[in-house]
Amino acid sequence: MSHLQITTNFDDSRLEADALKYRASIPSIHRFLEEKVGEPTGWLDAPVEMTTDQIDRILNISNEIKRNADVLVVIGVGGSYLGAKAIQEALSPYFKKHENGIEVLYVGYNLSGTYIKQLVESLENREFYLNVISKSGSTMESSIAFRVLRQYTQERYGLKAAQRIIATTDSEKGVLREIAHAQGYRQFDIPKNIGGRYSTLTSVGLLPVAVSGIDILQLLEGAKRAAIELKEMNAEKNTAYLYAIYRNVLHSRGYQVELLASFEPGLRFIHEWWKQLFGESEGKDKKGLFPATVNYSTDLHSLGQYVQDGNPILFETFLHFKDVAEDFSIPYSLLDDDRLNYLSKKSFNEINQIYKKGTILAHSEGGVPIIQIDLKRLDAFHIGYLMYFFMKACAMSAYLLGVDPFDQPGVEAYKKKMTELLVVETTAN
Amino acid sequence: MSHLQITTNFDDSRLEADALKYRASIPSIHRFLEEKVGEPTGWLDAPVEMTTDQIDRILNISNEIKRNADVLVVIGVGGSYLGAKAIQEALSPYFKKHENGIEVLYVGYNLSGTYIKQLVESLENREFYLNVISKSGSTMESSIAFRVLRQYTQERYGLKAAQRIIATTDSEKGVLREIAHAQGYRQFDIPKNIGGRYSTLTSVGLLPVAVSGIDILQLLEGAKRAAIELKEMNAEKNTAYLYAIYRNVLHSRGYQVELLASFEPGLRFIHEWWKQLFGESEGKDKKGLFPATVNYSTDLHSLGQYVQDGNPILFETFLHFKDVAEDFSIPYSLLDDDRLNYLSKKSFNEINQIYKKGTILAHSEGGVPIIQIDLKRLDAFHIGYLMYFFMKACAMSAYLLGVDPFDQPGVEAYKKKMTELLVVETTAN
Repeated sequence: MSHLQITTNFDDSRLEADALKYRASIPSIHRFLEEKVGEPTGWLDAPVEMTTDQIDRILNISNEIKRNADVLVVIGVGGSYLGAKAIQEALSPYFKKHENGIEVLYVGYNLSGTYIKQLVESLENREFYLNVISKSGSTMESSIAFRVLRQYTQERYGLKAAQRIIATTDSEKGVLREIAHAQGYRQFDIPKNIGGRYSTLTSVGLLPVAVSGIDILQLLEGAKRAAIELKEMNAEKNTAYLYAIYRNVLHSRGYQVELLASFEPGLRFIHEWWKQLFGESEGKDKKGLFPATVNYSTDLHSLGQYVQDGNPILFETFLHFKDVAEDFSIPYSLLDDDRLNYLSKKSFNEINQIYKKGTILAHSEGGVPIIQIDLKRLDAFHIGYLMYFFMKACAMSAYLLGVDPFDQPGVEAYKKKMTELLVVETTAN
Repeated sequence: MSHLQITTNFDDSRLEADALKYRASIPSIHRFLEEKVGEPTGWLDAPVEMTTDQIDRILNISNEIKRNADVLVVIGVGGSYLGAKAIQEALSPYFKKHENGIEVLYVGYNLSGTYIKQLVESLENREFYLNVISKSGSTMESSIAFRVLRQYTQERYGLKAAQRIIATTDSEKGVLREIAHAQGYRQFDIPKNIGGRYSTLTSVGLLPVAVSGIDILQLLEGAKRAAIELKEMNAEKNTAYLYAIYRNVLHSRGYQVELLASFEPGLRFIHEWWKQLFGESEGKDKKGLFPATVNYSTDLHSLGQYVQDGNPILFETFLHFKDVAEDFSIPYSLLDDDRLNYLSKKSFNEINQIYKKGTILAHSEGGVPIIQIDLKRLDAFHIGYLMYFFMKACAMSAYLLGVDPFDQPGVEAYKKKMTELLVVETTAN
């Protein structure tokens, strides 16, 4: 049995008819992906091809950081930030965060002067390492944050600063690679054929995640399992391809928004990562589902009203893990003045499951199409599996939509315009 | 001059024509809102009518909590959670959070067993108070969290537990009111004519926010200022009504998604609060703009691609504060190996402003309609002003759309169904 199940509330003869043209395209896209000629599809085999030496190097440096620092400062934006943050938030305890690792702070993903000033101040009296992550090495947010943090590291550690800076960057070129080489920083390579938003399960995501105390061997094991299971060409047996078909069918029926819904608050950044993956891969040529997210039951008291009764432009994808880390029973009360004793044999997670069931029932009755993605347990293995699943599904889905999953022309155009504007604005003053 | 400016990139003769029918409806809706007959519009005058005694009581209890506790645990969901959380995140430092107050933790806004177990464990060895907030007193998430925390408070503080529990609930009825009365908890009243999502600027939001160290007098001052300025019936002089017109015009032109965009990471929960306010007020009768949010520049590396080049179903509303708490200059580098010295006279916030300008230019060229909301400074006064502005704009906007801004039939229907399902599921086992 697969480690991930996918079901829908719209599986009928009409689905078969609407899915036909997508099913027909799958074999050729599948072969194209597998052949990888000139396409940035290095991520497809990365979990399987990663060597013990590569993993050991990540673990060794991670252990060195944990021994010698109170905090790891990760500098990155987009694909160099969201994946690690997502895994960390999903798998760390909510309050005592650093039991098996140390604190990991993220910077260089925004341009707030308040944020970077207060971040640097928070490093006073604490020992730290930097991990600067940038494929190109020239992205504005992370480049200027690195300039600040690098100077601060030199002030704090003098000649030993270079030992505390790890650069994760393109395996062949770029300004960060040059700097790291000249300064003697240790480096992790991002393979040329793996784009930013597909890079989480390489050293990009693995080093920060390992430092935060998460078991990266299990994470990779899950991704490897997914890489093997989802190599299947037959869409009936490949959940990633099924998901790609379902969302394209719904889009072709006129739905404009896909709402990813979960019932565990720690999944909030998995949602953000998913939004980047699908939004950047599919949102081009005036096409693409708009990716949005809700965290239930919280958002039943917010967007729930809209989903139930509002403009019927959306469908929901429920992402659910059956088992989670811990649970808590509703206590019995002698007084029962809140009249909740009828729940006192139940646990919170059991009630959460009932809410999931009730929400799907209510939204189904409200006419909302629903895709369900179910996994067994919220742990490193299944998060690794899920991320690989989403990447493979995204690549297939974008090709089914008729767009290139691996470029980002709008971002490039905007970056170019931005650089021009910066030169004008800085020379004007 | 108003404390908030509103501009658009689509202000032409076509706008005049499209806005005509909305402008025509404004006077009668305005009078209807002002007359408040039987409508839950108590929030309209709440900031002006709040007495010194009421404010002093909040400040006195807040000071007592700060003196006697390390942490305030706020129990609430939806309108009893998002507003306070939003203000706190917007106005607190990013790292050293509790300089003028104490830590405020939120619970009862989700059903995660992991979350509540780890929250209770985090209270060990720390002194705490509870503030349970629920208009009805019977919302599932907050009710069962209150049962747990109340028993834990009794274990920890014995006969003195009641002194550490503050109940904020309906001024007339409900199970929480009964419990608070019987147990001798101190109470804050939520006026009958103020609904959950319009209640932030009452004791619902003010007590937690005051405990976290934020100046609630300034917050109320801003809201009061907005209440006075936005009493204007002439839409040309009332920015809330202008915003209501603009978004309805764009919706009538076929845009389905409104994307609220900001450039300061701390505004993330202001976005969440805005989503609840507009989503729950307008998402009914198969109508309403779908409210979504982005935090730039972070999300220029995520949804930015979609906004620029994707399916043209959205318009953007930029929420911008000119001045923020702190700033940081890009340092000069002798080596200049990152080639960024051309920026070394600039500060992060200056670059952030240039990015805002560049983003608006790029998205305008991409054909995205843009509304700009500008305020002077990210501080308590302007957050108070902004929240009142959004509430007034939302009420007007929903009426212009032809829906009731103050009900939530979908949430009620779902709550009823959920309670039935819970009874079935709990008696079945």
